[in-house]
Amino acid sequence: MIRFNCDYSEGAHEKVLEKLIATNREQTQGYGMDSYSMQAKGLIRQICGRGDADVHFLVGGTQANLTVISAGLRPHQGVIAAETGHINVHETGAIEACGHKILAFPSKDGKLSAKQVEECCLAHREDMDREHTVQPKMVYISQSTELGTIYGKEELEEISAVCRKNGLFLFMDGARLGYALAASDNTLTFQDLARLCDVFYIGGTKVGALFGEAVVITHPSLKEDFRYFIKQKGGMLAKGRLLGLQFMALFEDDLYMEISRYADGLAEQLREAFHQAGISFLVENTTNQLFPILPDSVLELWKEKYSFSYQQRVDESHSAVRFCTSWATRQKDVDCLMEDIRNWKDADGKI
Amino acid sequence: MIRFNCDYSEGAHEKVLEKLIATNREQTQGYGMDSYSMQAKGLIRQICGRGDADVHFLVGGTQANLTVISAGLRPHQGVIAAETGHINVHETGAIEACGHKILAFPSKDGKLSAKQVEECCLAHREDMDREHTVQPKMVYISQSTELGTIYGKEELEEISAVCRKNGLFLFMDGARLGYALAASDNTLTFQDLARLCDVFYIGGTKVGALFGEAVVITHPSLKEDFRYFIKQKGGMLAKGRLLGLQFMALFEDDLYMEISRYADGLAEQLREAFHQAGISFLVENTTNQLFPILPDSVLELWKEKYSFSYQQRVDESHSAVRFCTSWATRQKDVDCLMEDIRNWKDADGKI
Amino acid sequence: MIRFNCDYSEGAHEKVLEKLIATNREQTQGYGMDSYSMQAKGLIRQICGRGDADVHFLVGGTQANLTVISAGLRPHQGVIAAETGHINVHETGAIEACGHKILAFPSKDGKLSAKQVEECCLAHREDMDREHTVQPKMVYISQSTELGTIYGKEELEEISAVCRKNGLFLFMDGARLGYALAASDNTLTFQDLARLCDVFYIGGTKVGALFGEAVVITHPSLKEDFRYFIKQKGGMLAKGRLLGLQFMALFEDDLYMEISRYADGLAEQLREAFHQAGISFLVENTTNQLFPILPDSVLELWKEKYSFSYQQRVDESHSAVRFCTSWATRQKDVDCLMEDIRNWKDADGKI
Amino acid sequence: MIRFNCDYSEGAHEKVLEKLIATNREQTQGYGMDSYSMQAKGLIRQICGRGDADVHFLVGGTQANLTVISAGLRPHQGVIAAETGHINVHETGAIEACGHKILAFPSKDGKLSAKQVEECCLAHREDMDREHTVQPKMVYISQSTELGTIYGKEELEEISAVCRKNGLFLFMDGARLGYALAASDNTLTFQDLARLCDVFYIGGTKVGALFGEAVVITHPSLKEDFRYFIKQKGGMLAKGRLLGLQFMALFEDDLYMEISRYADGLAEQLREAFHQAGISFLVENTTNQLFPILPDSVLELWKEKYSFSYQQRVDESHSAVRFCTSWATRQKDVDCLMEDIRNWKDADGKI
Repeated sequence: MIRFNCDYSEGAHEKVLEKLIATNREQTQGYGMDSYSMQAKGLIRQICGRGDADVHFLVGGTQANLTVISAGLRPHQGVIAAETGHINVHETGAIEACGHKILAFPSKDGKLSAKQVEECCLAHREDMDREHTVQPKMVYISQSTELGTIYGKEELEEISAVCRKNGLFLFMDGARLGYALAASDNTLTFQDLARLCDVFYIGGTKVGALFGEAVVITHPSLKEDFRYFIKQKGGMLAKGRLLGLQFMALFEDDLYMEISRYADGLAEQLREAFHQAGISFLVENTTNQLFPILPDSVLELWKEKYSFSYQQRVDESHSAVRFCTSWATRQKDVDCLMEDIRNWKDADGKI
Repeated sequence: MIRFNCDYSEGAHEKVLEKLIATNREQTQGYGMDSYSMQAKGLIRQICGRGDADVHFLVGGTQANLTVISAGLRPHQGVIAAETGHINVHETGAIEACGHKILAFPSKDGKLSAKQVEECCLAHREDMDREHTVQPKMVYISQSTELGTIYGKEELEEISAVCRKNGLFLFMDGARLGYALAASDNTLTFQDLARLCDVFYIGGTKVGALFGEAVVITHPSLKEDFRYFIKQKGGMLAKGRLLGLQFMALFEDDLYMEISRYADGLAEQLREAFHQAGISFLVENTTNQLFPILPDSVLELWKEKYSFSYQQRVDESHSAVRFCTSWATRQKDVDCLMEDIRNWKDADGKI
Repeated sequence: MIRFNCDYSEGAHEKVLEKLIATNREQTQGYGMDSYSMQAKGLIRQICGRGDADVHFLVGGTQANLTVISAGLRPHQGVIAAETGHINVHETGAIEACGHKILAFPSKDGKLSAKQVEECCLAHREDMDREHTVQPKMVYISQSTELGTIYGKEELEEISAVCRKNGLFLFMDGARLGYALAASDNTLTFQDLARLCDVFYIGGTKVGALFGEAVVITHPSLKEDFRYFIKQKGGMLAKGRLLGLQFMALFEDDLYMEISRYADGLAEQLREAFHQAGISFLVENTTNQLFPILPDSVLELWKEKYSFSYQQRVDESHSAVRFCTSWATRQKDVDCLMEDIRNWKDADGKI
Repeated sequence: MIRFNCDYSEGAHEKVLEKLIATNREQTQGYGMDSYSMQAKGLIRQICGRGDADVHFLVGGTQANLTVISAGLRPHQGVIAAETGHINVHETGAIEACGHKILAFPSKDGKLSAKQVEECCLAHREDMDREHTVQPKMVYISQSTELGTIYGKEELEEISAVCRKNGLFLFMDGARLGYALAASDNTLTFQDLARLCDVFYIGGTKVGALFGEAVVITHPSLKEDFRYFIKQKGGMLAKGRLLGLQFMALFEDDLYMEISRYADGLAEQLREAFHQAGISFLVENTTNQLFPILPDSVLELWKEKYSFSYQQRVDESHSAVRFCTSWATRQKDVDCLMEDIRNWKDADGKI
């Protein structure tokens, strides 16, 4: 079985693992107060060009989302998100369990627009009985999105401007941030993110680490007492250095971007193969996730050999599925799948 | 600096690490549905003598506590605990953040008594306006406790009986379970715990793993939908196999108990040394935590060389502090400290 | 200013007030344990044909909604509702503040369909990773809805059947229940509601009382410990008899239905007048709320004389607004408005 | 049966009721935006000497407590209270259900001391791992307390000073505020409360109203968005004028203080009668609650004729019970009880 269903099927990049092995019997202070965590935070501040940013390491994405949102909102406030947003569909109501409504807006490509944010704020402000409705206070976006698309610099500038104008925090879920920044059409840098967002995180779990997300906070109000929230939500790792060490490995020598580019490159090969086979996509994108629309008969055949995620039915005989590459995907597995794409096309003559 | 302040200063036991290294590039299913996690669960079911138990792996103790308690209680129900209980003092209100009151009772040695539980239930049942008060529904105990003491078989039988009589769930926090079961005066087995508790966990973070707690659920009502809670609370590790692999290593070949006995043995050496130096303890115990009462002047001297935890002031010139050993503590570091205990005694003539 | 903006502009029906006055200096037990509350509960059980039903009196609708939903759901469970549902739009996130996601579905007329409920359950059941999503466990519907429409007997039978098949609780918000049951095309009785719902409430605030909603619970699991929830959520009125007395007045001698029919009759007069003036409605209905689509110029004129609620913009020059009648609306005020409808039509010649 | 068990056995003072009757059919805006509510707020601002105070009317005490505390705290923050505090014992975990821990301190007379607050803050500030513990951010006190005692001006000045020094909000639960301010040894004024507290409420439910508590907020941070919290917690009364009207009646012509003095006077008569009979009290106080320690045999006799609250067992044959007077207590009922106190004493010769 060759797994293309997600980008967390393997362990960690060898350089990450080596750091853990090399330091294994060292004694350090707990809860992320060790020197490795400090060094890792320094590297991240540097790459973001923000010496004033607070950096915190958390174990996973849902944990990062609920901790940030819980820390940022008062009970009557909600978070604006695309309907497809991870917090809205795949976190078992984690945000609502912290007491907050997600103000979800329709999206075809996984992205939220500045216009949607603006309209939401306007509608709330003009409501005579606005205290009967949830007050929008934060915007949640994912980069890359759950559909593999990315926000460009201009789009992010617009969203950021609307947020600042309306006093909303802008929060970017970067579980797949590497694959977004490494995309061929990317126009954003870490510095841009630090400048335009109030808080965002750099995903490690899906980009070379065993686990770990680095939360970067630039807005002063969000910084206050953040460690209390990490502890309260069960996210404070006793051996916090494990997180620091992994991010050190990822952010020394550009490893994070290097392995992200590698994964995006493999995805591009697959995308090209599908295109040549005349296959269309549920959504066009340039990152490590692909959503081809394939005949159910082919999916039936392939599922013995490959694992992929089912996305949605498109018509009676076709479904959209998700194939992912990652830092750990092997070229030979991609070759194998490309061969099957070509062969199937040859044999079948049509899709 | 030699660290005795806690039992999570190092990484993982080598056998644990080896498993992670050996499987690093393997592809497995995510979220703990992989074969390693299944194997580890099987080992734990076996050692507990309960083929029907549900086993779930979580990353840390606070996470395990809040997930279990949130899953077990309805909103108007509370959990009975000793005032010293970890959930009551060192989790930043994690349980309250899930909506539940902790019904805390005084304890000098970290233990809760069957009598206290019984009285709490009785008072609630007899209250004419009982719907104005929180309904007790769960009992939380730690084994070993936050003061290093342990419940004996008879005590646990009594607490369990009171719980069953009153319809309460009995939940044991086993963050340091290995050190409890390895204690010289321990009278309990894993099978006993599985029989007497409704849910408990086997701590890995402090006993040989990089991180990880294995939650064992025997009560049918607590089993239902438990994975939803793990996900909602941010505790579902994407690469869940990392937890499975570590517990495989710990529960193959009795490693878990072997390293626990080692740590308790070192603590016994220190305990003996302190005793011989005429030093008394805040509380008498037999596990890997020691709470000697020491002159502030000595603590001042030692703190350059050793790290230890401050517990509480005892009188004007003495404080109780905590020294911990662990699976990773080196004999030579214990020897060094014992030497200092003896030397200081010799030099000073008194405490 | 003549108020048609809502159905809670006045105090209480005189028969309700008289009961409060007559008993004012009597001493009774607190918290709804008095004999008047008992009598009122008896009357409601009788009219519902369910001697086994639990009846609880709460002060208001949002309080009733959040108390019922909090009592019925475990933390990972959500409540299905129409997007227009009061809990989804006008309760400042009260349900989310209790930790639960509202699974909202599109609705043009304020109603939810059995098919929508069925599809939601099916999608959840078939989801491989269903523990990553909120589990549907309750259905919330309003009768009449926020758009003044009502469910017929067949519709409610279908929804109830789907709920029972899928193990969901069916909860009906009856803040305007009187106006629904008194509608000319109503096909439901209190007995039907008690048979088809698991819990519903009979609104008093908008139907003759100063305040008060009578929650009727027929499902055994929802009955358990319900008073704890009332207290915890701040809904237990010290002088609970005030609620009991009001519902006694409303349910002796059919007063509740009598005044509801009166209000619906007035609404019918206005509806007819609008129709004759060639005005169309945002939604067709038969209860005490009307949603005519009117020229902005007319609204501008009228707003000096009448108060009404703004609903939504329909086109550049027209808006839908809401006019409500109630048990307290005076015929002469309705006549006055009808006169203005006719006059304006005459003068203007068109809309 | 003569009820002395609580101070909410009757309806409302006639002047309160008259206002409701007189305005019953008037149409006003909903949700407390009517002119009566505005007038009542004006009266309260005036009596507090704080034109800048925000005043909000809520239905009951638990609702007021949970709304204020939820509005004032971030999730990792807790509220300091006496162990006997209403929020700690008689609100079914309402505060915890909003996510907050109550940091409860021992109290024999129902009061919290400035010293206890200071020590709590100090302990937190000095804790190296303070983010592992709940951050104290508010102090909750009751005036009069649950044991009928009152804070004097000096005590309140001290507590207020400690709060301001440590950045804590001071919140006073005034469910029985009238009976405190009317006590013979009272040293505080409404102006003092407005100056020394950040938020407090003036209880109406127990002091002449059918229901209602007037929350007075002087601290700017607590004012922000408070109405959202009222709505979210289910406390926004549709016919909000009912609250405004009642407080108008209470605060025109000094009615509130007049009826409070009346109740305290009756309590004083009973207190004197008990004293003369040689009976001691669980706690000495000067307000409308009395806690005599009586022989169980007498209680057994009396319970057919009087209702009173059981407080606690004192020794094998004696219990402390609670007798309350209120604005509605009749002199003849007090006379009757005094007669019984004297007679029983005469007959028995001893207690």
